[in-house]
Amino acid sequence: MTTRSDGRTNGEMRKVLFLRDYTKMTPGSVLACFGSTRVLCTVSFEDRVPPWLRGSGSGWITSEYSMLPGSTPGRVSREAAQGRLKGRTQEIQRLIGRSLRAVSNLSGMGECSLYVDCDVLQADGGTRTASISGACLALHDAGTRLVSRGMMTAHPLRELCAAVSVGVVKGESVLDLPYEEDSAADVDMNLVMSESGKFIEVQGTAEGATFSSQQMQEMLTLGEAGIAEIIKAQQTYLSEKLSPGWGSSWG
Amino acid sequence: MTTRSDGRTNGEMRKVLFLRDYTKMTPGSVLACFGSTRVLCTVSFEDRVPPWLRGSGSGWITSEYSMLPGSTPGRVSREAAQGRLKGRTQEIQRLIGRSLRAVSNLSGMGECSLYVDCDVLQADGGTRTASISGACLALHDAGTRLVSRGMMTAHPLRELCAAVSVGVVKGESVLDLPYEEDSAADVDMNLVMSESGKFIEVQGTAEGATFSSQQMQEMLTLGEAGIAEIIKAQQTYLSEKLSPGWGSSWG
Amino acid sequence: MTTRSDGRTNGEMRKVLFLRDYTKMTPGSVLACFGSTRVLCTVSFEDRVPPWLRGSGSGWITSEYSMLPGSTPGRVSREAAQGRLKGRTQEIQRLIGRSLRAVSNLSGMGECSLYVDCDVLQADGGTRTASISGACLALHDAGTRLVSRGMMTAHPLRELCAAVSVGVVKGESVLDLPYEEDSAADVDMNLVMSESGKFIEVQGTAEGATFSSQQMQEMLTLGEAGIAEIIKAQQTYLSEKLSPGWGSSWG
Amino acid sequence: MTTRSDGRTNGEMRKVLFLRDYTKMTPGSVLACFGSTRVLCTVSFEDRVPPWLRGSGSGWITSEYSMLPGSTPGRVSREAAQGRLKGRTQEIQRLIGRSLRAVSNLSGMGECSLYVDCDVLQADGGTRTASISGACLALHDAGTRLVSRGMMTAHPLRELCAAVSVGVVKGESVLDLPYEEDSAADVDMNLVMSESGKFIEVQGTAEGATFSSQQMQEMLTLGEAGIAEIIKAQQTYLSEKLSPGWGSSWG
Amino acid sequence: MTTRSDGRTNGEMRKVLFLRDYTKMTPGSVLACFGSTRVLCTVSFEDRVPPWLRGSGSGWITSEYSMLPGSTPGRVSREAAQGRLKGRTQEIQRLIGRSLRAVSNLSGMGECSLYVDCDVLQADGGTRTASISGACLALHDAGTRLVSRGMMTAHPLRELCAAVSVGVVKGESVLDLPYEEDSAADVDMNLVMSESGKFIEVQGTAEGATFSSQQMQEMLTLGEAGIAEIIKAQQTYLSEKLSPGWGSSWG
Amino acid sequence: MTTRSDGRTNGEMRKVLFLRDYTKMTPGSVLACFGSTRVLCTVSFEDRVPPWLRGSGSGWITSEYSMLPGSTPGRVSREAAQGRLKGRTQEIQRLIGRSLRAVSNLSGMGECSLYVDCDVLQADGGTRTASISGACLALHDAGTRLVSRGMMTAHPLRELCAAVSVGVVKGESVLDLPYEEDSAADVDMNLVMSESGKFIEVQGTAEGATFSSQQMQEMLTLGEAGIAEIIKAQQTYLSEKLSPGWGSSWG
Repeated sequence: MTTRSDGRTNGEMRKVLFLRDYTKMTPGSVLACFGSTRVLCTVSFEDRVPPWLRGSGSGWITSEYSMLPGSTPGRVSREAAQGRLKGRTQEIQRLIGRSLRAVSNLSGMGECSLYVDCDVLQADGGTRTASISGACLALHDAGTRLVSRGMMTAHPLRELCAAVSVGVVKGESVLDLPYEEDSAADVDMNLVMSESGKFIEVQGTAEGATFSSQQMQEMLTLGEAGIAEIIKAQQTYLSEKLSPGWGSSWG
Repeated sequence: MTTRSDGRTNGEMRKVLFLRDYTKMTPGSVLACFGSTRVLCTVSFEDRVPPWLRGSGSGWITSEYSMLPGSTPGRVSREAAQGRLKGRTQEIQRLIGRSLRAVSNLSGMGECSLYVDCDVLQADGGTRTASISGACLALHDAGTRLVSRGMMTAHPLRELCAAVSVGVVKGESVLDLPYEEDSAADVDMNLVMSESGKFIEVQGTAEGATFSSQQMQEMLTLGEAGIAEIIKAQQTYLSEKLSPGWGSSWG
Repeated sequence: MTTRSDGRTNGEMRKVLFLRDYTKMTPGSVLACFGSTRVLCTVSFEDRVPPWLRGSGSGWITSEYSMLPGSTPGRVSREAAQGRLKGRTQEIQRLIGRSLRAVSNLSGMGECSLYVDCDVLQADGGTRTASISGACLALHDAGTRLVSRGMMTAHPLRELCAAVSVGVVKGESVLDLPYEEDSAADVDMNLVMSESGKFIEVQGTAEGATFSSQQMQEMLTLGEAGIAEIIKAQQTYLSEKLSPGWGSSWG
Repeated sequence: MTTRSDGRTNGEMRKVLFLRDYTKMTPGSVLACFGSTRVLCTVSFEDRVPPWLRGSGSGWITSEYSMLPGSTPGRVSREAAQGRLKGRTQEIQRLIGRSLRAVSNLSGMGECSLYVDCDVLQADGGTRTASISGACLALHDAGTRLVSRGMMTAHPLRELCAAVSVGVVKGESVLDLPYEEDSAADVDMNLVMSESGKFIEVQGTAEGATFSSQQMQEMLTLGEAGIAEIIKAQQTYLSEKLSPGWGSSWG
Repeated sequence: MTTRSDGRTNGEMRKVLFLRDYTKMTPGSVLACFGSTRVLCTVSFEDRVPPWLRGSGSGWITSEYSMLPGSTPGRVSREAAQGRLKGRTQEIQRLIGRSLRAVSNLSGMGECSLYVDCDVLQADGGTRTASISGACLALHDAGTRLVSRGMMTAHPLRELCAAVSVGVVKGESVLDLPYEEDSAADVDMNLVMSESGKFIEVQGTAEGATFSSQQMQEMLTLGEAGIAEIIKAQQTYLSEKLSPGWGSSWG
Repeated sequence: MTTRSDGRTNGEMRKVLFLRDYTKMTPGSVLACFGSTRVLCTVSFEDRVPPWLRGSGSGWITSEYSMLPGSTPGRVSREAAQGRLKGRTQEIQRLIGRSLRAVSNLSGMGECSLYVDCDVLQADGGTRTASISGACLALHDAGTRLVSRGMMTAHPLRELCAAVSVGVVKGESVLDLPYEEDSAADVDMNLVMSESGKFIEVQGTAEGATFSSQQMQEMLTLGEAGIAEIIKAQQTYLSEKLSPGWGSSWG
């Protein structure tokens, strides 16, 4: 087994960190750090639902994702300036939304919406998995505060969820790929799992290559271990006391 | 084991059929039928490559996907009329393109592009998997003719690929879901594999639910068998003689 | 009089064929064939009308038109990918809608809409005239079935309509131009007429040329004869029994 | 024969007037007045051609059309604000361009482009026919000046062209319809003809109605007479001396 | 002090002229002329307000601005054809709307909207200041007529407003810059003031340069004098009798 | 004099702070804090210029601005999702670009571009002035590093610039308005000035009100003092040592 360029072993995660209330205007706000990757996840509340849910009594959770132009060495063009979302952006934000809804109870929320925004401040691989993992915590904080203020009937989250990337690089299955590995990988797989160890999403892709059943099993094993570690970090985060308030004086 | 609504067993495919030269304006054209699902796959040739490949000597294969408005009982809005592609459309056409490139040798093609268009005439579940399976054959026919006319240096395909859907419906793992099952499924997974039995893509999604490791293994097993069957149908198709010409008199 | 490149005389139509229920998801679906030109016409039902008709008791018929990318030897760019409809597309779909409304009784339909989609599978000249001629039949079938199911108050069609192209090629007036002639024509005229022999639309265009009163009269004479022939083919089509049902089991 | 609401007989034109150099920034600029309808036609020069003509030695003439928001009693939404051109706008500007090109010799112009902009200041029916009739004069003035300054090789116009509307209102065929008649017409036809009496475009439309061969002949007769009158007005305009210069001091 | 290229002194305005009822379809319509700059200002009435004002009893005044393609020697691309408004256009139309609202009493108008459209027929510098100055008069005329017909509760204008440009050209502060000076200016400032001599907007910009406090004071002094002169011209305009009617017979 | 809601006197700034290398992927990156307002300013380098500067030997500096959806209590819609930039966004990003270019020497940079991105993480009034003030520092850091690596010929900045907001709230002129004051202000003015005390931009706006000459002078006086204070903070920032490197290992 060769050592990876950043010195980690194949099954080793980068340093995972979640910073609470990184900004203060929304009821939930978390900076998720997976190594050098930094994603700001905020959760905004709106007292109404999309047209197809009106009158249903049920709530809605949706997500949007974006990379700041300066988040990578080669500047990312601003999609707003181009007037259309890239396919990659749409795939990622649909994935984040589906993942969070898979561990939520929408019907208990009451008729309201939570917007989960994941904005990448610094991108070094794994931005979508850091987004999901951080968004889940921001959603947890937002739910707690909104329920306590009576703005939501019940907390939406049934359990936590987290995500991690795995891949095959130079023939080796590895966990939590930074950009350098990601851009050289033969296979790239993203796993989303619940606190109870169930699968929510499995997305494995081989651009210009293929992978065997055995490689798939190896990646699943690495990924399950990585997710367990992230969920432990999430639980630690939640064990700390949350201040009841948020926002400025005009919140 | 309960019988499925169309009488199939859990591991049984719908009738799979590929009709060659369904239209005649392009060097490859296949109507792919998975039960009532009908997708017209055409492959068009262009004697140049996208900007980032110019001068590289390498070719390019890309794909676009669309559903005809009348392909479903409730009319599908035309994306051209709305001025933007839906996220689902972008996801699917990116998937088709990646899958075909995974079994192709782009550098041998010479500097030219193949556009693979998958237009759904009738939609009854599995449109993306029928698209990939049919597109692979249309690409094969196109490659054969273009090489024989000297328009391409070498045939792009290294081997065949095919795709199938699997899922969990009422607790049972099932193969090749029609719309009726698809809309009621707890888990929906699409598999793309190569002729040599390797994975190209695995995309499993649980909207509002989760799935266990065991269910995942069951789905993989069903899917691998289904894909083997589709590849056999593709091989039969290719064993029939292909006429060298195509196009109208003005082609 | 020179013979035309496909052997027809100046006043001879290409082979005209209408295939019923070419797809099965909508109450009306016809494949219209004028020689090598193939247009799939489907008619979808919607239980509401555009805003300006709400509460009027009247129905609405509208049309959309598109060419599949692989329908011509040089690939047609997908308008959905470019985010805007071409002027030509808008002209054609407005023409189809106006033509069908000219022979319809919208106020008798009840407050509902019929969407007539014309998608060109193969283009060899005359796609707009084949669209109108086929769409009229698909509308007839849809009307019959929707009235019989009680979804519409009365059948919208008062009489049939059909369309044909005429033009001046190398100084000769000719009927029903394939692409080869169309691209070399000095004048291009499209006629839409009703079963009772009245005009609905006359659109004659001379790009980079002009035409005399005599040429116009010649074209009108050829066109009237051609339309009579198409209407006879439509009547034969309608003389065959229509099955009452449509759609899949989930229709 | 009933008198028309503005007192004209069926075959009588409204007052037709062309004002030269209505603005001064472009080499040609005409205000065309058909009764209360006022269209500002300007012709701008550009020293290059669209991509498909580069290196051909040939020039290009194209046209754009727009209605000012305050040109009608009910404000017209600005298409720029909505981000897309209406189908009607595209149809009209394509018609204007084709009509002018039909009487032009593009290959003699040299590789340059003329942009013909028709902006409706006041709309009372017949804006497209006033546009074509005025644009032809603005093009004539622009050509004269550009050739005299050596900016164009030869004058593009081979002969003049003009356009007029005819229609069937309350069963009577009438010439040059104002808005009041246009909105009540069963049939609406626009004719474009050349100075030598040949047809360039014939566009007859019956929304919710049909028309007979006899009505068509009546409309053609009225239209030919109307166009002859407009062309006489154009010839008078051109008989007046044109100042050689245009533009401000910074032109 | 050097003389300016058009012979004016530094503090001298170009000839200012306002032509009433330049078009007749809207209740207010003014052609504003500042030298060679010509802007057509029309005011259209709509019997409803934007969503955020519904039920408030208050009215709304908004503005849109555009340059006709032939208004400058080098043709201006039509924003409608490009599908998006330029930043400059948005800035100007927001400025016009804010300026008019600053001297209006929206709450007295009743729930209705006035659309102020400023379309530049000829551009020779100062189009935004001519727009504001002319729009104010068109708004005055429209208000007078709409109140007299009972379509508005009270006249919206509390007092007049006008605007002028000032700048620093070759080190000298100058008033009312034509294009030639504007394109060579180090500083460009637009002032909007009320009839009572108060400021509404001050927008001073130094592209690639800076300006001192003293230059700013000089510009303010010149601008105040220029605005006083424009307001006198507005008052003269309003001292002339306004005909009560407008529109065509179909208004 | 009444005390302001946050206890400041009328001429007192909020706490101003600039954090260097807040992210690490670009050669310059500063978090600008004006009270609770937080703007992330990054400067990206590109080795080419816009078309109109090619071959000129000159460089270019441009700016884009955006508010993160979660930066305010009521979520800001993502402009990328709506497909168009708001007028306010365009105004602000044009202002930032002009301000930076006013203190830069573009011709000395060589043919390269600097993209200055200002993304608002938290918005409590004054986001555009914090953007300009922070962007100037990020530009300074980027210039220093790019020149030292030989990627740029000379440092673009000739001197520093900074910006501040002033306004009239309840009749009092105040400095550096937070959102609470801003939303209640009668007049809102933004000043941009250079290190040498010259004006770059003055933008004063009175929505639904007007302001006197005296109020304008008061605001100018407050603003000049505020900017002097910000420039002192900038100078302190620059007095600290800058590490030569930036970016990840793959930078």
